[in-house]
Amino acid sequence: MISTPTALSIAQELLRCPSVTPADAGALGVLETLLKAAGFEVHRVTFSEVGTADIDNLYARIGTSAPHICFAGHTDVVPPGDDGAWTHGAFDGEVADGLLYGRGAVDMKGGIACAVAATLDYLAANGGQPQQSGKGSISFLITGDEEDVAVNGTVKLLQWAAERGEQFDHCIVGEPSNVEAIGDTIKIGRRGSQSGVLIVDGTQGHVAYPHRAANPVPDIARLITALNDEPLDAGSAQFQPSNLEFTSVDVGNPATNVIPAQARAKFNIRFNDHHTQETLRALVDQRLAAACGNRIRARIEWLPSNADVFVTKPGAFTDLVSASIAEVTGRTPDLNTGGGTSDARFIAKYCPVVEFGLVGQTMHQIDERTPVSDLDKLTAIYRGVLERYFA
Amino acid sequence: MISTPTALSIAQELLRCPSVTPADAGALGVLETLLKAAGFEVHRVTFSEVGTADIDNLYARIGTSAPHICFAGHTDVVPPGDDGAWTHGAFDGEVADGLLYGRGAVDMKGGIACAVAATLDYLAANGGQPQQSGKGSISFLITGDEEDVAVNGTVKLLQWAAERGEQFDHCIVGEPSNVEAIGDTIKIGRRGSQSGVLIVDGTQGHVAYPHRAANPVPDIARLITALNDEPLDAGSAQFQPSNLEFTSVDVGNPATNVIPAQARAKFNIRFNDHHTQETLRALVDQRLAAACGNRIRARIEWLPSNADVFVTKPGAFTDLVSASIAEVTGRTPDLNTGGGTSDARFIAKYCPVVEFGLVGQTMHQIDERTPVSDLDKLTAIYRGVLERYFA
Repeated sequence: MISTPTALSIAQELLRCPSVTPADAGALGVLETLLKAAGFEVHRVTFSEVGTADIDNLYARIGTSAPHICFAGHTDVVPPGDDGAWTHGAFDGEVADGLLYGRGAVDMKGGIACAVAATLDYLAANGGQPQQSGKGSISFLITGDEEDVAVNGTVKLLQWAAERGEQFDHCIVGEPSNVEAIGDTIKIGRRGSQSGVLIVDGTQGHVAYPHRAANPVPDIARLITALNDEPLDAGSAQFQPSNLEFTSVDVGNPATNVIPAQARAKFNIRFNDHHTQETLRALVDQRLAAACGNRIRARIEWLPSNADVFVTKPGAFTDLVSASIAEVTGRTPDLNTGGGTSDARFIAKYCPVVEFGLVGQTMHQIDERTPVSDLDKLTAIYRGVLERYFA
Repeated sequence: MISTPTALSIAQELLRCPSVTPADAGALGVLETLLKAAGFEVHRVTFSEVGTADIDNLYARIGTSAPHICFAGHTDVVPPGDDGAWTHGAFDGEVADGLLYGRGAVDMKGGIACAVAATLDYLAANGGQPQQSGKGSISFLITGDEEDVAVNGTVKLLQWAAERGEQFDHCIVGEPSNVEAIGDTIKIGRRGSQSGVLIVDGTQGHVAYPHRAANPVPDIARLITALNDEPLDAGSAQFQPSNLEFTSVDVGNPATNVIPAQARAKFNIRFNDHHTQETLRALVDQRLAAACGNRIRARIEWLPSNADVFVTKPGAFTDLVSASIAEVTGRTPDLNTGGGTSDARFIAKYCPVVEFGLVGQTMHQIDERTPVSDLDKLTAIYRGVLERYFA
């Protein structure tokens, strides 16, 4: 049996590439070399858009038939901040006291390193193919544009792959999903996000003669209270209740003696799988109309959103991942849908997707780090997933 | 008996002085000449202040003892606007079809002309003195700084007079108080004005984690509704109910995914004689505290105000003015306290004051004008006031 590289050695090599978005700094080349050597067909794809930097992306696949499991992620990282504040250099990949330090250690070069190490080890033990029968596919979908504007990354790479005829059956995104210890959490979905502007039209006038004017300020206050106070739902099997949050109210009237003509309030809704963007907008529009009655003239301008709700319902695939986690860590992971958005929301349009990686505690911080033992555990978990997936 | 000048001739002379604030353009000189000739002691007083133009003012008195009645007003006018749009020149003092045209015809050179004409006629008929006994005083308190910043005008002239030992018993301001026809309205007071800023402090956070933040936007909406909806009073004998009007709400948060740390709302209160500025502030502060409970952190920043409420309660003086109006016009005037502020609010700190003059319909407009017959009526009314006052 061939000895394949460890997750630690791959992670160190990746960490030593200072790939702060939009720089690649050689990170994708590290993966390309390893995957090509293991028999993957590797594509490097560069996307461009006016006003943004060109971005390198990588898509690699071994096998040509279903079932097809994909590991997805990003090699770009956020800036290190104050370099001098790091105990070990942000781009040195140093290990001290069993901890691997560096920007991207958990978010998410470490996760990618584990997926590559697990895959190479699995293939080596299986005659270099996903299944002994010659069936099955494993792929890597890696972008360099996740942490910043995310324009030339996963969305375009998925479109590019779809145009090539790539079909994904399942995907694991190696984002740091765990809260306190490896194995505690799988992210199986995220709430959707929808923003809007509530606009109330009144009639301008002098404060000394309010009966000749229609003041939109107390009216927008009433509407904010009405929309804020009525729950959108009571939560669902996989999600907390949807939430509408007003983030700003702006009139901008400098004159103390003038009743203004218009008031505006901005809001954002994080919504669960009781809604789609369309049904959600209709619900809020309807509640606004009820709160306005025949008197208040108000409307909502809905802003474009690319963050629809998604969920991978608990079932065979999540059971398989959970079983592998339990075997390695002894933990039963929480199937969670909390928190902000990630690239998984784009992948969800193509196939069931879960996020499972390292522990997120130090992500984006000075001294981002992971125990080396977590790299070993995550590699073993991914290895177990591949075993079960192709069994 | 000496023939004294008519109100029309005095008004025309005044209108031909283009005394757009801060220019005097000879207007006060017209009054000085007439009043000196009738035996008044005339003072011309110039006030200065850094950042504003020097302003001419006039104080003239005949007699040295009580009772002392004062006619107050201003000879400055607002700009004529588009000169070419006037049917008759804004500074020509032309009469056509029984109407006197010109900037200041009603606001308020016309009113001053009537007061001077009435006084000269009254004195001529009384041996040149307010009372045959030699008692009584009549004065004119005329500023050139009412229409613009009003810094070097009535407030300073009253202080100057007080320092000289001048004591006023009653005052009539010749502002155009009537709404539709001469005699319909005496202004006996004005509401006070007090502005403030409501500030609500929250805790900034991410919209995806509202439980970790405290959003000041729904809280300020609740407070606006609470302060807006509870009446400050039910009105008083002379005043409509006090009114609190929110004029702006401003958060200025550009980020759709951030819960802001603070929200601010501006408001203005027009208040009646149930309140003083101090008791009003205390009342609103107390209502705010009740609406906040133990949860909401909010406070009001009160802005400085020089517009306290004042009222000259109906009584002997208003009866006397009303009787003279009724005699000349057949109308019983409404004793009104509506509308905006005027210099009468400053005079009210020294003596009872009412506003009665011409009809305000065309003030500040192109083709400002008054019927000549109104000048005759107003002169007769003022003449009647003097008769009754010194009887």
